[in-house]
Amino acid sequence: MVRAGRRTGPTTTADEILAAARSLFAQQGYRGTTVRAVAAEAGVTAALVHHFYGSKERLFVAATALPLHPADLVADLVSRGAREDLGERAVRAFVRLWRDPGTGQQLAGAFRRMLGSSDGSAFFRGFAQDVLVPRLAGILQITPLRVTAIMSQLVGLAAARDLVGVPPLADATEDDLVLLFGPVVQGHLDA
Amino acid sequence: MVRAGRRTGPTTTADEILAAARSLFAQQGYRGTTVRAVAAEAGVTAALVHHFYGSKERLFVAATALPLHPADLVADLVSRGAREDLGERAVRAFVRLWRDPGTGQQLAGAFRRMLGSSDGSAFFRGFAQDVLVPRLAGILQITPLRVTAIMSQLVGLAAARDLVGVPPLADATEDDLVLLFGPVVQGHLDA
Repeated sequence: MVRAGRRTGPTTTADEILAAARSLFAQQGYRGTTVRAVAAEAGVTAALVHHFYGSKERLFVAATALPLHPADLVADLVSRGAREDLGERAVRAFVRLWRDPGTGQQLAGAFRRMLGSSDGSAFFRGFAQDVLVPRLAGILQITPLRVTAIMSQLVGLAAARDLVGVPPLADATEDDLVLLFGPVVQGHLDA
Repeated sequence: MVRAGRRTGPTTTADEILAAARSLFAQQGYRGTTVRAVAAEAGVTAALVHHFYGSKERLFVAATALPLHPADLVADLVSRGAREDLGERAVRAFVRLWRDPGTGQQLAGAFRRMLGSSDGSAFFRGFAQDVLVPRLAGILQITPLRVTAIMSQLVGLAAARDLVGVPPLADATEDDLVLLFGPVVQGHLDA
């Protein structure tokens, strides 16, 4: 279905592309969705989608309202210091993203959509499988299974601390969280 | 609001009590809800609520549709073997509960409700804070912070593997999962 070009209210072309992307990623999965199909759904050219979002992968990250591409964050963390402190740096960066009011709210929304329904889970599964896990395995030089083990630990930390908000985890300081979870992440990196 | 005693369809008194409990736990929180208030909401006596569910705590577990009281599971696991294998036994038991079609479906429903909305999270937070964390700290003889760290790991495992279903974690064998996560849980137990 190609939409009419008519605009109502403050909706912009970029927003229309995102809405089309959300709809198609949900219906067709990550792999089954092309930039060309998103463009057709939004009634624009594929070149315009690339102009706004760069690639299918970036379009997906924008459609989920994640505050950043997780692979960009991890590549940055790897470049910032020694391998033996990477677990600590990763936990610290993750906790700070959740504590920041802006990015924390974006993450909470994305995580609730990802975990709250089987449709929401399916939306993320394809991206994780086709893009995120292989990309992070390459960046971190660990097995895909270890990548998913680290992801499960960080998702669990956010679920218990930031979504459900269980004390005393919810009230723990950043340093406490680094002490609790840094060695877990590092253990998967060193395995 | 006390309901009329009229029955429609196959609803039983036990179900009416559960519906009243869900409503009050959601509105008033775990601490703010009494068995007496649930009984009044369901139009029955408090004695009947105790007859069906035993205690406020058991009533909450039934209202969440969890397949069992987590503290019962943990107490059983502690009694079944050596402390140094408890992390492995805990991961194995958790994975089996999720793999069993009956209990797995119950857990998936409860976890999606717990993580999918702020109301759902609030519903579980009070029970975790007032009952589960102190109880497990006593059974396991570890700090409440370590209890919540273990909970976060197991919630994350279920979220990544059973809710989102990210490969290769989603396809890992029970033994693989024990190797990945048993040492993490054991580390928190030994800390």
